[in-house]
Amino acid sequence: VTRWFVNEQSQQGIDCNDRGLQYGDGLFETISCVGGEPRWLDFHFERLQNGLTRLRIPFTEFDALREHVVAHARSDAQPCLVKLIVTRGAATRRGYRPVGDEIPTCIVSRHPWPQSNSPENEFRVGLSRVCIAASPSLAGLKHLNRLEQVMAAMECGERKLAEVLMSTATRHVISGSMSNVFLVAGETLVTPDLRDSGVAGVMRRVVLETAARSGLAVQVRPVGIEEIAGFNEAFVTNVRLGVQSVNQLEGRTLLVDDFAELLRSQINANTH
Amino acid sequence: VTRWFVNEQSQQGIDCNDRGLQYGDGLFETISCVGGEPRWLDFHFERLQNGLTRLRIPFTEFDALREHVVAHARSDAQPCLVKLIVTRGAATRRGYRPVGDEIPTCIVSRHPWPQSNSPENEFRVGLSRVCIAASPSLAGLKHLNRLEQVMAAMECGERKLAEVLMSTATRHVISGSMSNVFLVAGETLVTPDLRDSGVAGVMRRVVLETAARSGLAVQVRPVGIEEIAGFNEAFVTNVRLGVQSVNQLEGRTLLVDDFAELLRSQINANTH
Repeated sequence: VTRWFVNEQSQQGIDCNDRGLQYGDGLFETISCVGGEPRWLDFHFERLQNGLTRLRIPFTEFDALREHVVAHARSDAQPCLVKLIVTRGAATRRGYRPVGDEIPTCIVSRHPWPQSNSPENEFRVGLSRVCIAASPSLAGLKHLNRLEQVMAAMECGERKLAEVLMSTATRHVISGSMSNVFLVAGETLVTPDLRDSGVAGVMRRVVLETAARSGLAVQVRPVGIEEIAGFNEAFVTNVRLGVQSVNQLEGRTLLVDDFAELLRSQINANTH
Repeated sequence: VTRWFVNEQSQQGIDCNDRGLQYGDGLFETISCVGGEPRWLDFHFERLQNGLTRLRIPFTEFDALREHVVAHARSDAQPCLVKLIVTRGAATRRGYRPVGDEIPTCIVSRHPWPQSNSPENEFRVGLSRVCIAASPSLAGLKHLNRLEQVMAAMECGERKLAEVLMSTATRHVISGSMSNVFLVAGETLVTPDLRDSGVAGVMRRVVLETAARSGLAVQVRPVGIEEIAGFNEAFVTNVRLGVQSVNQLEGRTLLVDDFAELLRSQINANTH
């Protein structure tokens, strides 16, 4: 059983007691839809399903959810984003501990493809002053606890950057506020290990699989802040930006774009 | 301007786009009301106001909010809990970054005083396997990102404990899942430093101020997990439990209760 809120219905309003609102007790997915079709839907569903298992939210109606997403994507050929939220549902008693009889809430909404804010070749990225938490029990999940990202995004706006990189208290770079990050050292592509923190992005997975298929050398490992000055190429990824080259990193102009270009062309070749 | 949801109205439903639901972008307070009066209301409002400033949520209607709380408390002489949630309001565009034109949402609800789950003298506490994040930008705040506490509370239920203590990845004890923790070493009361993590509880503050007034030796400092075995008295605090003695800590029975008893009697003397 699920309480559904699909598009217009979503004006209807969520119960104030929903644990998604009370505690951020839920997950979300943002799916890019191009030419009337959702992209990488299986990856999104796999991550969602994994998250529900880890949080022990007993949502099961994946077929119905998939149909909603596909219908939203097909309703218009214009590119769009479809966002899903699945929460544990309205609390059936007070307190953090769920009873187990909650009815999950599922919200599906369609959003026009956003305009890019950054002029071409001016995707500037800096290091955020907002720490990202090391929290192994939540690492990898796209859950609804996003206050750190909200604070980093505010900082990003103030500093007129396109994105900020967030690091842990132990000074390890994890990701952007709304993206994953890849860095190039010599001939090797490096992306932070997400064992302790961060979201295992769908586009990150697409990049990692594409790189592996292309025989590129890839390292998934902890990346110290102090290493940042040593990389000569960087790009960030999410399903909206795709593979987005970083043109300036902490004030330093990056002139190399090779890995990003290669990956972009291979990903496009695979998806069409 | 504020969008209010007060008690019955709260059935009405929150906008699916509320940033409280989307990102946990908001704060809450749980206020204990006894004899028709809210207790420590100034402390709750001070923490709320501080949190709103730190998150830059432009809620200003504190007088109206105070009146709602007082009215809820007075509506019945039975003890109750009044819960407030203030969020940044419905998103006016997609993405983590707030635009600044959001209208805050304020939810006020009254809950009957919950029954205690633990029989007297059986308040058993263990160490949680769920890490609590070190996140200095959010430390101290009673914000809506509570998934770690939800997971710890699930564990607590499974292990049939009354509360679990949560520690950071660096093995520092921070608090319980729903309480702050105090420990006694010799003649000194110790409670974890909350610079990097945890909620600055109202009852914690009441205890610290009461201890100071009584001339007790108090240390607010980092507490390593390995120290836990060395304390011979422990209690947890929140506005519902008050000063709750821990009878068993990680399987070890604690027989001493002196600090807790002294503090309880002094706090009661001050509030009545």
